[in-house]
Amino acid sequence: MKVLIIGGVAAGTKTAAKLKREDRSIEVTVITRDQDISYAGCGLPYYVGGFIESRDELIVNTPQKYSGLTGVEVRTGKEAVALDAAKKEVTLKDVQTGNTEAWSYDKLVIATGASAAELPIEGKDLPGVFRMRTPDDAESMRTYAEINHVKKAVVIGAGFIGLEAAENLHAKGIHVTVIDFAPQVLPNILDPEMADYVKKHLENAGIRVITGTSAKQILGTDKVTGVETSEGTFPCEMLVMAAGIRPNTAFLEETGIEMFKGTILVDSQMKTSLDDVYAAGDCAMVTNRITGKRQWSPMGSSANLEGRTLAQVLAGIQKTYPGVLGTGVVKLPGLNAGRTGLTEAQAREAGYDVETVLVPTDDKAHYYPDASFFITKLIADRATRKLLGVQVLGPGEVDKMVDIAVMGINMGAVLEDFENADFAYAPPFSTAIHPFVQAVYVLMNKLDGTLVSMTPAEYAAGKAKGYRVVDVLPEPEIKGAFFVNLAKVNGEIEGLHKKEKILIVCARGKRAYFLQNRMRYYGYENTVVLEGATFFNDVKVNDTEDVV
Amino acid sequence: MKVLIIGGVAAGTKTAAKLKREDRSIEVTVITRDQDISYAGCGLPYYVGGFIESRDELIVNTPQKYSGLTGVEVRTGKEAVALDAAKKEVTLKDVQTGNTEAWSYDKLVIATGASAAELPIEGKDLPGVFRMRTPDDAESMRTYAEINHVKKAVVIGAGFIGLEAAENLHAKGIHVTVIDFAPQVLPNILDPEMADYVKKHLENAGIRVITGTSAKQILGTDKVTGVETSEGTFPCEMLVMAAGIRPNTAFLEETGIEMFKGTILVDSQMKTSLDDVYAAGDCAMVTNRITGKRQWSPMGSSANLEGRTLAQVLAGIQKTYPGVLGTGVVKLPGLNAGRTGLTEAQAREAGYDVETVLVPTDDKAHYYPDASFFITKLIADRATRKLLGVQVLGPGEVDKMVDIAVMGINMGAVLEDFENADFAYAPPFSTAIHPFVQAVYVLMNKLDGTLVSMTPAEYAAGKAKGYRVVDVLPEPEIKGAFFVNLAKVNGEIEGLHKKEKILIVCARGKRAYFLQNRMRYYGYENTVVLEGATFFNDVKVNDTEDVV
Repeated sequence: MKVLIIGGVAAGTKTAAKLKREDRSIEVTVITRDQDISYAGCGLPYYVGGFIESRDELIVNTPQKYSGLTGVEVRTGKEAVALDAAKKEVTLKDVQTGNTEAWSYDKLVIATGASAAELPIEGKDLPGVFRMRTPDDAESMRTYAEINHVKKAVVIGAGFIGLEAAENLHAKGIHVTVIDFAPQVLPNILDPEMADYVKKHLENAGIRVITGTSAKQILGTDKVTGVETSEGTFPCEMLVMAAGIRPNTAFLEETGIEMFKGTILVDSQMKTSLDDVYAAGDCAMVTNRITGKRQWSPMGSSANLEGRTLAQVLAGIQKTYPGVLGTGVVKLPGLNAGRTGLTEAQAREAGYDVETVLVPTDDKAHYYPDASFFITKLIADRATRKLLGVQVLGPGEVDKMVDIAVMGINMGAVLEDFENADFAYAPPFSTAIHPFVQAVYVLMNKLDGTLVSMTPAEYAAGKAKGYRVVDVLPEPEIKGAFFVNLAKVNGEIEGLHKKEKILIVCARGKRAYFLQNRMRYYGYENTVVLEGATFFNDVKVNDTEDVV
Repeated sequence: MKVLIIGGVAAGTKTAAKLKREDRSIEVTVITRDQDISYAGCGLPYYVGGFIESRDELIVNTPQKYSGLTGVEVRTGKEAVALDAAKKEVTLKDVQTGNTEAWSYDKLVIATGASAAELPIEGKDLPGVFRMRTPDDAESMRTYAEINHVKKAVVIGAGFIGLEAAENLHAKGIHVTVIDFAPQVLPNILDPEMADYVKKHLENAGIRVITGTSAKQILGTDKVTGVETSEGTFPCEMLVMAAGIRPNTAFLEETGIEMFKGTILVDSQMKTSLDDVYAAGDCAMVTNRITGKRQWSPMGSSANLEGRTLAQVLAGIQKTYPGVLGTGVVKLPGLNAGRTGLTEAQAREAGYDVETVLVPTDDKAHYYPDASFFITKLIADRATRKLLGVQVLGPGEVDKMVDIAVMGINMGAVLEDFENADFAYAPPFSTAIHPFVQAVYVLMNKLDGTLVSMTPAEYAAGKAKGYRVVDVLPEPEIKGAFFVNLAKVNGEIEGLHKKEKILIVCARGKRAYFLQNRMRYYGYENTVVLEGATFFNDVKVNDTEDVV
C-alpha cells in the first residue's frame, strides 16, 4: 500500500511514523513545502523572546534523521497544487523549479496545516511585518528586533499566538501594544469577564491592550513605522500579524471535498468526504467531545492525537477519534490562563441550562512561600449537574486545574464526582481541600440554593442596582458600604432590614457566604453574595447605596 | 441538638464549622487538649526549614477567631479521658488542674487525631529528641537547631513526615541522616524500585539514607549525642522521631468501640460501632475507594473531606464518604514524589491481574528552559484495563500527574479513556502529547503485545540474565553492549541472531521500542525492551553478555 502524506509538521509526521510502526510494509511518503519538518510550532514565540536560544532546538527532527528513525520517505520543497481523487493522484509542484509531477497513492492524508490569516490591508508586506508560523518567521522576527533595536511593537490579534508574541517581545524589553477587532482578549477562549481580568493584568504588566479596534492600514514606506486603527495611530518599528490562521486548503477547492470555511470536514476516523482521502491537524475540522458538533481545534496537541488515531485507522485498527474539548493554556507575564470545554456563551448556545460560578482560592497552602491564587470559573449544566467547562487564571499551575477538568469531562463527571476526590496535597503543591474541589463546592451550594450569589458578569451588567452593599471584610474597606463584623453577628443586625436587597461583599467570597448563611438563619430574605468579591470585581458604592 | 466534637485541628474544626452552617440551631462544642486549634499540621516541617518564617502563619485560626467565624464553642486545654456511650457522656480532664467533668451529648464526634509513635528505646525523652506533630514541636525544633548550631541530625523514619523533616533540616545546612526499619524509603507509598530511585537521589543531594536499620538506643546524658543502630552508631546533636504515628484513641479502650490497631472503624457515613458516636480524621479508619477494603489515611486532606461529609450527615443530609485513594505528594530537594491508588504490591495483594509500566518522559516541551522529566509508573488491571495506581517522580509538577490519575480512578477509567484526552498544552506547561498519555500509550502497547518489555524491578531481580544487551542510544554508551544504529536498520542486523535473547536499551525507552518494532518485523523473535532504560536503571554488561 502507498500512503502519501501532504504536510510534515505535527499531524503529518505523527501519522507517518506511527503508521510505519503499525506496518512497516506500507510505503509512506511525506511531502513538505518547507525544508524543515517536524518543527516545534508552539515554541516559536519563546524563540523570539530568547527563552529558547538556538534555532536548532526548535527542529525536532531533520528530514534525514526522521527517515532514519521511522522508515518514512520525506520529500521537501514540494507543494500540492491539485488533487484528482477519482484518479487517486496529487499534483506536486517543486517550489524551486516550479516543475510539476503527478503522484499516485492508495491512501492520501492531508496535513497541510494553516497559515497566518492575511488582513486585506495596505502595508502588510512591508519589512518589519511578521507572522508566527515557521522557524524562519521566528528567526527573522528575532533578528529584526535585535538588529533594529526595536523599542515599540504592535501585535494584531489577542488570541493565544498574539498574546504569546506580546509576552515574548515584552520580555525582550520592547514596548508592546496588542490590538484586536473583538471586544475582548482571547475571544471564544475565555468568557468576557475573565478576559477583562487578563486585559487589566496585561496592562498592569506594561503591555498595552486595545480591544474592539480594527487595523486600517500599516504605515511605512521602506519598512513599517506604525499602524493606523479605528482608535488612532500607533507608531511601531515592528508588527506581528496574529489575527487568526487559515487552513492551507486552497488546492482542494475544485475537488468537491466537503469543507467549512476552508477546513476539511472529517469523520471520527479522520476520513474526508472523498474516498481514500483523510485529513488531520490544523487543516481539519473535527468535533467537540461534549456537544458532538463541529469544532476546529488547530492545536499542536490535537494534531498529534489526530495523527496517531489516523495512523491506526490506516493500519486497519478499529479506532475512533472522540473529538476535542478546545483545551488551551497560555503563559502570560505573571498570570497564566487555561481553559477547557465550553465557555458560558458556548454552553448557552448549545442549549444547556447553564449555571456558572467564579471562585478565587489559594493555589497552595497560604503560608507556603510562593503561594498565590487561582481564579476558577466553572460552567455546568443545571439539569444533569455535568461539568461543561472551566476557565482558570493564576500565576501558577493553571494547567493542573484544566487537566482535572479534562479528565472529568471526558468521563462525563457530574459535580458530585469531584466532591470527595482524594487529590494530591502537601503545602508546596496545593491546599488541604483542593482548589478545584473548593470551586465545585461553591457551585454545588449555588445549585442547591445554600448560596445565593451574583456573578461578576451580572454585577458588571448592573444587576446589583438597587442593592445595598454590605462590607464583611475583616476591616472596613469598601467606601460607602455598610460594614458588618462577621464575628459579632448572632442575631438581627442593627441598621439592616430583613426585606432589604443586600449585596454582601468580602475579599474573595468566603466570608460573604458565611455572613449570608447566618443572615438567612436570622431572617434576612434578600441577600446576595458577590462572586469573586473585591479580588475580582471593582466594587464601587455611590451615595444612594446603588451600585454603579 | 448538642454535638460534642473532641479534637480541634483539621477534621474537628471542619466538622464543627460546616455543621453550624448547615444548621445554626445545633449546639456545637469543640474540645481540644492544646491551646492551639486549627493549625497547619502539614506546614510544620516548612516552619522548621524556615520556608515559613513566623509561627503565626501556622495557626489558621485562634479559638476566639474561629468561634466568631463559625458560632462554634471552643474549649481548650481539655482532654477526653473516658466515654460512656450508653449514658452519652464523655469525661473531660482539664490538662492544667487535672479536674474532671462529665459532658453529655446527643451526638459525639471523635477527631482526636494521632501522635508520633514512640519507639520503645532508651533516650527517647532526651533534650534534642523531637516529634513533628504540633506547632510547639516545630518551634522547639527550630529554636533548638538554631541555638545549638546543630550540624548533624538524624531522622528516624523515611515516610512523608520523616523525609519532609530531612529536607527542611538539610535546607538549614544541617547534615542529615535518615534511617528506617523498612528496606526502602516511603514504604507502602512507593514500590521498591521507585523508592530506590528516590533514595539514590536523596544521597546525591547530600542526605544520607540508611534503610533496613533499626534504632537500638538514643545516646546522650543531658542531651542527645547520637543514635545506636543495627548499622552502627550515628553521632548527632538532634534527632527527629518520625517512625509513624498512632491514633489518639487510648481513652476508648474500655468502650467496646470497634477498632483496628488503635484506629476507629467508621462506615461510609463516618459512624462508629457505637450509637451516636462518629469519627473522622487521623484517628479514623475509612476504606479504599478502589477495593472497598479498610484503609487508614491519616492526611490533612482526607481529614477535611471526612469532616465535611460528617457534618452533612449530622445535619441529616444523605451523603456518603466514598473512601480514599491513599494519595500523597512530597517535595524533596530537586525531586518530588507523588502517588495515588494501589502500588504494584497492593494491587497484587488485592487480587488484580496486574500489569505495570515505567516510563520516563519530558515534563514539558524539551526546548523550554526549565524542562525536566517525569518518571511515571502506572499500575493497571489486565482484565478490565482499569487504571489502579500511579507513582510519579520528577523535579516539577508531579501533583498534576497524580491529580489526573485521581480523577480517572474515581470515574473508573480504563486506559482507553486517557487515549485522546485533550489535556492542556503549551511549551511552558507540558508536551504536545501529555506525559500522562505517553505513559498510558506505553502500557497499552505492552498489554496489546506491540511492546515486549521488562520492568526495572524485573531487571533488578535478574530477569535479564542470559540476554544479550543491545545499545540503541544515538551514540554507543553502554560498555560491553552490542551497538545498533537505529537509522541503519532496514533488514537483518549483522551479528545478531533471530532467535537470540536480546535486551534492547536506550536512554529512556523510546528508541528501544522503535528498534524492537523494526526487529520484530525483520524476524527477531526474542527481543525485550528495558523499561526506564539507562535513565532509570544502572545497566551493566559483563564479558559473557550476561547482565549482572
